[in-house]
Amino acid sequence: MSAASDISDPKNSIVDNLPISRPTLILDAKRALANIQRMAARAANCQVRFRPHFKTHQSARIGEWFRECGVASITVSSVEMAQYFAQHGWQDITIAFPVNILEIEAINKLAASIHLSLLVESEQTAAFLDRNLQHQVGVWLKIDVGYHRTGVSWDQFDEVIALARLIGRSKKMAFTGLLTHAGHSYRARSVAEVRNIYHDMVEKLQQLQQKLMEQGFSATAISIGDTPCCSVMDDFSGVDEIRPGNFVFYDAMQLTIGSCTEQDLAVAVACPVVAKHWERNEIVIYGGAVHLSKEFIEDKNNTKIFGYVAPLEEQGWGDMIPHTYISALFQEHGIIKTDPQFFDQVHIGDLLAILPVHSCLTVHLLRSYLTLDGETIATMQSAPFTQLT
Amino acid sequence: MSAASDISDPKNSIVDNLPISRPTLILDAKRALANIQRMAARAANCQVRFRPHFKTHQSARIGEWFRECGVASITVSSVEMAQYFAQHGWQDITIAFPVNILEIEAINKLAASIHLSLLVESEQTAAFLDRNLQHQVGVWLKIDVGYHRTGVSWDQFDEVIALARLIGRSKKMAFTGLLTHAGHSYRARSVAEVRNIYHDMVEKLQQLQQKLMEQGFSATAISIGDTPCCSVMDDFSGVDEIRPGNFVFYDAMQLTIGSCTEQDLAVAVACPVVAKHWERNEIVIYGGAVHLSKEFIEDKNNTKIFGYVAPLEEQGWGDMIPHTYISALFQEHGIIKTDPQFFDQVHIGDLLAILPVHSCLTVHLLRSYLTLDGETIATMQSAPFTQLT
Repeated sequence: MSAASDISDPKNSIVDNLPISRPTLILDAKRALANIQRMAARAANCQVRFRPHFKTHQSARIGEWFRECGVASITVSSVEMAQYFAQHGWQDITIAFPVNILEIEAINKLAASIHLSLLVESEQTAAFLDRNLQHQVGVWLKIDVGYHRTGVSWDQFDEVIALARLIGRSKKMAFTGLLTHAGHSYRARSVAEVRNIYHDMVEKLQQLQQKLMEQGFSATAISIGDTPCCSVMDDFSGVDEIRPGNFVFYDAMQLTIGSCTEQDLAVAVACPVVAKHWERNEIVIYGGAVHLSKEFIEDKNNTKIFGYVAPLEEQGWGDMIPHTYISALFQEHGIIKTDPQFFDQVHIGDLLAILPVHSCLTVHLLRSYLTLDGETIATMQSAPFTQLT
Repeated sequence: MSAASDISDPKNSIVDNLPISRPTLILDAKRALANIQRMAARAANCQVRFRPHFKTHQSARIGEWFRECGVASITVSSVEMAQYFAQHGWQDITIAFPVNILEIEAINKLAASIHLSLLVESEQTAAFLDRNLQHQVGVWLKIDVGYHRTGVSWDQFDEVIALARLIGRSKKMAFTGLLTHAGHSYRARSVAEVRNIYHDMVEKLQQLQQKLMEQGFSATAISIGDTPCCSVMDDFSGVDEIRPGNFVFYDAMQLTIGSCTEQDLAVAVACPVVAKHWERNEIVIYGGAVHLSKEFIEDKNNTKIFGYVAPLEEQGWGDMIPHTYISALFQEHGIIKTDPQFFDQVHIGDLLAILPVHSCLTVHLLRSYLTLDGETIATMQSAPFTQLT
């Protein structure tokens, strides 16, 4: 695999060898590649289609690493992201977001050149698409299995059947199946909890699938998406497709849930130390909300944690420093709360590795990666592209 | 004033006339200009220097509106931002962030061509600058008056005097004075509370100034920065400089504090409606954490509010919808919680105006403005520039 040879053998400390003076997104490409390979192998073993969500990495280059693992179909979160990846050769894209009918023109252009799938959850949207689509698209019904963000509730059988009929009658829409994102798995704090959510989700979707089958919809696929469920299950019986995204890098939130180990974390943000406050064991870094996002996790004592901290070392970053976390983020500042031992080891002008809470948002903000080899990798946020619209 | 003529007379509804299909940052330029004029007039009346913080708008074009109001000196939050505005003709810039010594090369290049001022709060940084600066810079001591983000605590007289002496002895540093950001004013929920914070801050800084005067530092200026204090005070006696930034647009947080009225809010994000859930009076919009940021305010019942909602109208946006707010944000989705009346008026495919909680972060994420006249205005995030480094 050529990607693997690209990313091997960083010879020296990245701190000594890379010109880092500002908050910089560091990518451990070997770890990312291992995460991709592991998930691809799991999907293959379980005989489910692997349609990874590319909203986490947003990068054509990293997309190629997936292709080398046999991936041909992907998930994105916006029409713009579909345009970007279509321009980079992806021919089978699901936009996992309720159709924004104001973008019908761009949708029609995309559907003219790739196999596009959309998410529908209302009659209004289905009727609009039937009238306005110019090319055939695949349509998934977005089902709510308990997250209550969006989608038709799994137990609204009549509503789902009516929608499936509406779509089935359209010449422009091919009814594909039931798609869900069990985002409530992000509230889990153990593998056992995640597994319970998984089983509950699949049971609900299968009940609904059965109801549709009774109405003559024989080929109703099931697609699931969340990284926690996809990371901890080894058996996806009854599921046809998995769409995890975050797993490519994981993050502090996934670590807290139990989806990954610390050694799976594939991105960190190198941040300069700019001030120290011994009277409260706080270290101030150049690294704030515009670099890390204001996403946080709360520990058992309701302490807000905006990231963890690790030393930058020869081969990347080391183990997380105990009793040490980002306690507050401002536009450009971050505050590290620590103990006297670590406090004394850190000096103004040092670089620390911050392990972000939510890697998707951090990548979106920082827009490009610096690998441990010193290579810069662009994302769609850093690489302007010619819009199809 | 030419800026005023630039931005007048939007003839029709922006919804009908502007090609908005995705989350779009709408700028009411008249309101922004009025905010600038009001703050410039307040500073002039009070005979304090107006050194506005440009981290909120991050735009060379909007910077020109300030210049037309007589502004010649500005504040920024990063070396990169100083480079951008220096390239756009600003000759007097304070980087209001503890010096990041890793950026000394860029600092030296900037100081060669403009009057640059820096913030120092430690002996290590002062000693480093003394050894490594190639051109003279102004130096403010960063003082903590109670926010506890960073800075030397105002009551550490000996530490402040030692730092002032260290700076005073350097040929490369000109000791300018005491600078603070009373960010705890953001926790205030009334004008009276903000005023109390202001008076407490000035009293502390004046005590410290007196101590320095007794040690022979006769020309110690006082610089304050937060938008709440700068917005509600009409008398800045004892203060030499004000550095507010957020006031150019204000936002839902400033409205909650009492710094502004709803009619002062100068930016909103136009977001498409993509789904509705009548069973919980929730509207799903295309507009999430990557557009609005995850900043929130909490109301008296500890309900998290990620933004308010207004209709898009002929001349911009209308009054905030009562009982209606953004209750959750995901990467691309936002959830509006509302009542049955407004719920019934909204349809899939409508555009709603979202009033962001924190305009600085929203501008940073959306990167360019669309004025009510349909003009696109770039920021430093959207307009790549040649770095001086």
